[in-house]
Amino acid sequence: MTSTSHTPRRPSAAAGRVDQAQMRAANMALILRHLRAHGGRSRARLAAETGLSKATMSSLISDLAERGLVREGQLHRAGTVGRPGLTVELDGRRVCGLGIEINVDYVALAAVDLSGTVIRESSTPVDVPRLPVDAVLDRVATLVNRMLDSIREAGLIVAGLTVSPPGVIDYAAGSVRFAPNLGWRNVPIVAELADRIGPDVPPIHLENDAKLGAVAEYAAWAPEGVSDLLYLSGDVGVGAGIIAEGRLIRGWSGFSGEVGHLPLDPEGRQCGCGRTGCWETIVGLSALLRLAAPEDDEVQDPTRPLEDRLHTLHTRADAGDERTLAALRQITDDLARGLSVLVDVLNPEVIVLGGYFAFFGDYLLEPLGAALAERRMDEGSGARLVVSRLGISSTARGGAIVALEDVFDNPTLIDTH
Amino acid sequence: MTSTSHTPRRPSAAAGRVDQAQMRAANMALILRHLRAHGGRSRARLAAETGLSKATMSSLISDLAERGLVREGQLHRAGTVGRPGLTVELDGRRVCGLGIEINVDYVALAAVDLSGTVIRESSTPVDVPRLPVDAVLDRVATLVNRMLDSIREAGLIVAGLTVSPPGVIDYAAGSVRFAPNLGWRNVPIVAELADRIGPDVPPIHLENDAKLGAVAEYAAWAPEGVSDLLYLSGDVGVGAGIIAEGRLIRGWSGFSGEVGHLPLDPEGRQCGCGRTGCWETIVGLSALLRLAAPEDDEVQDPTRPLEDRLHTLHTRADAGDERTLAALRQITDDLARGLSVLVDVLNPEVIVLGGYFAFFGDYLLEPLGAALAERRMDEGSGARLVVSRLGISSTARGGAIVALEDVFDNPTLIDTH
Repeated sequence: MTSTSHTPRRPSAAAGRVDQAQMRAANMALILRHLRAHGGRSRARLAAETGLSKATMSSLISDLAERGLVREGQLHRAGTVGRPGLTVELDGRRVCGLGIEINVDYVALAAVDLSGTVIRESSTPVDVPRLPVDAVLDRVATLVNRMLDSIREAGLIVAGLTVSPPGVIDYAAGSVRFAPNLGWRNVPIVAELADRIGPDVPPIHLENDAKLGAVAEYAAWAPEGVSDLLYLSGDVGVGAGIIAEGRLIRGWSGFSGEVGHLPLDPEGRQCGCGRTGCWETIVGLSALLRLAAPEDDEVQDPTRPLEDRLHTLHTRADAGDERTLAALRQITDDLARGLSVLVDVLNPEVIVLGGYFAFFGDYLLEPLGAALAERRMDEGSGARLVVSRLGISSTARGGAIVALEDVFDNPTLIDTH
Repeated sequence: MTSTSHTPRRPSAAAGRVDQAQMRAANMALILRHLRAHGGRSRARLAAETGLSKATMSSLISDLAERGLVREGQLHRAGTVGRPGLTVELDGRRVCGLGIEINVDYVALAAVDLSGTVIRESSTPVDVPRLPVDAVLDRVATLVNRMLDSIREAGLIVAGLTVSPPGVIDYAAGSVRFAPNLGWRNVPIVAELADRIGPDVPPIHLENDAKLGAVAEYAAWAPEGVSDLLYLSGDVGVGAGIIAEGRLIRGWSGFSGEVGHLPLDPEGRQCGCGRTGCWETIVGLSALLRLAAPEDDEVQDPTRPLEDRLHTLHTRADAGDERTLAALRQITDDLARGLSVLVDVLNPEVIVLGGYFAFFGDYLLEPLGAALAERRMDEGSGARLVVSRLGISSTARGGAIVALEDVFDNPTLIDTH
């Protein structure tokens, strides 16, 4: 079974009559999400906090344990009085999600288990623009199957896959509508990958890289109490992932965060999307390379790995190379302009810079922070600016987390042992 | 008791140990919100849909009914089989919220009951910029007390007030930090109004006009299945209220939607906020008046009621006056640029134009829609553009709805009869 839908997140309780099994599943989901949000706790406390009776709680916990989704662990003492009890906690040993990022020059995979632990990660150079679509999909399927085998051999169930393709997603059709940097058009990627992965393919979702980056970063920031976060991906394309009050804001048709195409270039350069003056034409990776070096410079050579080229540029900046430094200053100014728009619209508490922005964080963060502070409307409206610490894996990790959502919505998707 | 806080929306169940009374209150809140979202239904269905036992449900419904928050009404038949049962529904007869908008030249009030019905509305011309702050607050308190008296005489409890002041809110302090169009600075409006309204003052919240406009518009659109909506207020200032997946997005410190100050004017005019090039300097009401008529024209006379001046302009446009039409075309172009930014960032399904934009909807909607369609990234990402049908009362109505949120979060705030 494959699926591209993200919609049926909420149990359909409200829609009509609910039978006993649906009600049970919805309450199991409630327990699972409560444990994820607040950590392990006793049955008694879970019952009190969720409003379910102790008898119901007991039965649901047994059911969840039989499915391998929770376990009873350490003794704990609730407060200062009463006898110590067993803590119920998420069990990461049985179920995981898999995220797959197809980027311009690599394919990254990550598997995250139910308790949020990253259990597998890989990144493989793939020269996507120079390969036929079929060859790319073959390669991706091979990588996925290799990881699926390794995870399944270790005894885990893969609840779902989330693929992040490098282009505009048609969520309803499960396809990539177009990918300007790759020349892809109307690639039915879900069906094609499902065919190649074979009969045991888990449900496949599609989601864009910036949204998945935001999900992965949010997983790291939520424990610190942050609930409004903006993630900015920095590649040839630039996109934003928006977390508001702890939830990913997808927009009504999944097109939120298309900030790379904000009209912010007064010179109105042509963009791959068909518009002119798009923000990514002045702050995307191509803009940095163009500003920092002549066309025949080694950093512009697409056959060299991107990381090496960025390293070269960083070394030049460290050595005081004026053209590189001027390029970074220009990028900073243009980044500040767009970030200031996003701050005005969204008022995030934390802005996480990803992609190549993170790589040049030591040059960008301070002047960007100063520029944003200067434009701040009110002392209470400033955002904290940081760089991603997840690096290249953030999209794939976010994909793995999103792939687990189905289980958090309906734990009965996972059969008992 | 007064309060400016909007934070404790969610029952604090998760924070620690929860006693019986808190759990009961949380479950009563669950029932109340369920009835609001999905309409009246039988006890049996409510029990099935919320996961609460029938015995618990019965006890909670009785409790809610004693507080006058729900009632059992019409017979209904669930599906085609089984005996008909009584429908439990929200009871609007006992509790309402009150919204108060202090604008530049009027004060509007609206009361909305628990079932969503508008039970009182008023709008009073007040020349706010020419009056001392104290005199304005006296006037507002008099208007509020008059409405409070009338509502209480009718036997209703006013659960809370939401005030929308015409300036930047300091949520924590309950004050208006500054209101450039009025010359107000650091006005502790919650405390001042509470003093004036007297000992029976309900809790007072503060919220900005665009956010409240969005809440009011959303109440009208939600029944049609819309969950992602953007409301654009159009006055001297311009602001956005964002509803995403059915929830008001406030930003981490309440400063989301400050779109009037997006840097969208290439000529960089000075704005009241201290920045230059702000969007509202080219699409706000002052821009329309400046573009449409010379300084000594009657439409620029601040002593004439705004509605009359807008009527004059509209009549000129209808008569084919070239300057007025050119002004509207210019506003359309500049509005399209900013709306396109908001569409790229937020991907709303519906954009509701409020304030003077709504007044000129017959001139703005069609060309704006065409301009947005032209910039659309993807056929699936377009937004539906409409004008507000709530008119001047949308902010006050939204305030009344927000003032009721405390009851939906904790129904035990309302005592039994």
